[in-house]
Amino acid sequence: MKRTYSTELAKYLGKTIMMEGRVYNIRKLGGITFVILQDQYGLTQCVGEHLDVLPKTGSVIRLTGEVKAEPRAPHGVEVKIAALNVINEPTEELPFDMSKNDLNLQLTTLLDYRPLTIRHEKVKAIFAIYDTVIQSYAEALKKLGFQEIKTPKILGAATEGGSNFFKVKYFEQEAFLAQSPQFYKQMCAGAFERVFEIGPVFRAEKHFTTRHVNEYISLDAEMAYIKTFSDIQKVLTKVMAHIFAQIAKHNQNELAAYGATVPAVPKKIPSLKLADAKRTIKEKYGYEIPADTDIDPEGERLVGRYAAEELGSDFVFLTHYPTDERPFYTMPNKKDPSVTEGFDLIFRGIEIATGGQRIHKYEQLISSLKKHGFNPESFDFYLQAFKYAMPPHGGWGMGSERIVYKLLGLETVKEAILFPRDVKRLVP
Amino acid sequence: MKRTYSTELAKYLGKTIMMEGRVYNIRKLGGITFVILQDQYGLTQCVGEHLDVLPKTGSVIRLTGEVKAEPRAPHGVEVKIAALNVINEPTEELPFDMSKNDLNLQLTTLLDYRPLTIRHEKVKAIFAIYDTVIQSYAEALKKLGFQEIKTPKILGAATEGGSNFFKVKYFEQEAFLAQSPQFYKQMCAGAFERVFEIGPVFRAEKHFTTRHVNEYISLDAEMAYIKTFSDIQKVLTKVMAHIFAQIAKHNQNELAAYGATVPAVPKKIPSLKLADAKRTIKEKYGYEIPADTDIDPEGERLVGRYAAEELGSDFVFLTHYPTDERPFYTMPNKKDPSVTEGFDLIFRGIEIATGGQRIHKYEQLISSLKKHGFNPESFDFYLQAFKYAMPPHGGWGMGSERIVYKLLGLETVKEAILFPRDVKRLVP
Repeated sequence: MKRTYSTELAKYLGKTIMMEGRVYNIRKLGGITFVILQDQYGLTQCVGEHLDVLPKTGSVIRLTGEVKAEPRAPHGVEVKIAALNVINEPTEELPFDMSKNDLNLQLTTLLDYRPLTIRHEKVKAIFAIYDTVIQSYAEALKKLGFQEIKTPKILGAATEGGSNFFKVKYFEQEAFLAQSPQFYKQMCAGAFERVFEIGPVFRAEKHFTTRHVNEYISLDAEMAYIKTFSDIQKVLTKVMAHIFAQIAKHNQNELAAYGATVPAVPKKIPSLKLADAKRTIKEKYGYEIPADTDIDPEGERLVGRYAAEELGSDFVFLTHYPTDERPFYTMPNKKDPSVTEGFDLIFRGIEIATGGQRIHKYEQLISSLKKHGFNPESFDFYLQAFKYAMPPHGGWGMGSERIVYKLLGLETVKEAILFPRDVKRLVP
Repeated sequence: MKRTYSTELAKYLGKTIMMEGRVYNIRKLGGITFVILQDQYGLTQCVGEHLDVLPKTGSVIRLTGEVKAEPRAPHGVEVKIAALNVINEPTEELPFDMSKNDLNLQLTTLLDYRPLTIRHEKVKAIFAIYDTVIQSYAEALKKLGFQEIKTPKILGAATEGGSNFFKVKYFEQEAFLAQSPQFYKQMCAGAFERVFEIGPVFRAEKHFTTRHVNEYISLDAEMAYIKTFSDIQKVLTKVMAHIFAQIAKHNQNELAAYGATVPAVPKKIPSLKLADAKRTIKEKYGYEIPADTDIDPEGERLVGRYAAEELGSDFVFLTHYPTDERPFYTMPNKKDPSVTEGFDLIFRGIEIATGGQRIHKYEQLISSLKKHGFNPESFDFYLQAFKYAMPPHGGWGMGSERIVYKLLGLETVKEAILFPRDVKRLVP
């Protein structure tokens, strides 16, 4: 007998069907047993009379029964159990009640018990949305003529500054884990013009915040033959619009579980120069950031608040960051080389993406490397692309998990990662 | 003026257009200059009379001109250059002729000059097809109800045997790079039922072969509520059919560049028990593999030959490998526990995927761990999923690059990787 899923039951009213899944909850009232069965797509109320087997909560079972109308049950139907078999059962009792609407666990417990807690309906919702983010990111860029690339995560040299790299013992050599696909996506833009990558990046930073982890999935893109960095902002805006349209299309139940709403992505996301944004939040909210620092989390939060309150947007670009605070490959502004042709994208008060135009001329790059205190010889493999002429280009890197974290209003980005890695956590 | 691409020119016959791209080749015959311009989608013949600028090969240029019919040129059109500007040019001469149909370089040179060689039309073709493989793998599985997951690549424990792991210094701890997402995808199958992952895996193996690298992109999947491992084979067969259908749809030019043809994926891929396959290749080709080894590359090649010659298939499953040679989590056959409920998928004589049913009962898994010489306590985080009941499940891992390697008949899998990593190579 073919397996029927929770979401298909209404089609089988009056019919006998077979279901498989997990006992999410079980209650006995006299001779009547209520089994809440969980499958891939959700929950089903199943009712048995005088069952000879009483499966434990968390068991994996198979049951057959007739589909009956029941307005108070999910999907308006319930299954009257005819037969029930236990396929597998827990070898010990579940450590907490998995059937509550909210798990309400300490973060440590939530993550220590990850193989179990990801089975909770509300936790599953997070990763259904995460899946949509990943798929729709690729879809949007494919439609815009981008090609997906996969670049190495083990590097022979610690580039982009040298600090914050995890070291790897690579046979007899020392190697490093990629902090970003930056150099590789640029080299690929020199060949394929428009590229994107979805892959892990590794940051050896001793953060203890709700927005940082040491390994995450970066959504990267790089495009050649741009005129200015606004070409990049336009593409990123289209990508964000597609991601949220797809979430709205596929994940209404998951959004509802968190009382979350999909933001409207403006046709043109408002853009503020960093210096203007700092002045604005000082005037409006009395929050002052020293002239020589770029922006801090509270500053981002207030810029987000300003964008929402005054510009009617959940998104805002911050542009023209100081050249000194950006990586050596960042293109400086022609008129004022102390600021860059780059941007951060702020979503609901948190930076989710950083991008901009890159330097494409060999000599300018060499001089910028030196200005940043690097020895160009250490960058030979990367400079090759420039020696043989790069087109004008730029792109972005975006934190995939931060999108879901802010969309659902989670307490930390770690909740949006299946098995997060932080300074202390390597397990599970 | 908007940029026009090589593939769009025929639409603009008689019109003046603007193109940007790279000078793939340039020849001067008297006062006439032929510029072969390369853009993202291919080559265009452009003709100029008495040009005042003569760009170097490899330069990035912009030109405007009129589109004219020219039956001997690509797409049946050429561009009569009205104006030409050099945007960027090489700072030194290209080290080899990039305009030949075949680069014909030593592998070392091909890879040392990767930022340059990926700009070659025939090399670009490889990565256009690779992109299709990645996109269509996800598409096929999404259609079949699978959810994409992303699991950590830095692990707290070297599992699955302990050898062949790269070590990472993780703050004050020792960590390891994931050899496969095996444990994580199983834990996720316990929650989401059907999952897949596209991500890097790292193997610290001292191979020097044409089929191995130390970092590659693994195409993984895991599915719960299976009856037997043939349920997995059926899904994998559908996935392969979709991948090759999409390549046939999108990549005819790229296939033609290699004289390659897309294989027909049989509705049911032939399946041979390993012991029978060994007997067959001994009888047919006189090649004997000792009873106590599973199969070697020459054996795989001959099994592939047998499948092609006698079974009319470019694909063949090998099943029932010895339990001793498979990982501890592999489900043994009920009737004969010395063989497993697993398979390898051979494509044109090379193993591209390994899969099978996994043990789902806690006690059986503990006993298998012990039998394989492991201490179950080291697997606590993984065993948690089983303590709280796993459904019957299984899946596969597949080497993405091997598919392209064999499809195009490349000399080594390294040619199918943008920036491959082998025992000696960490750069570029």
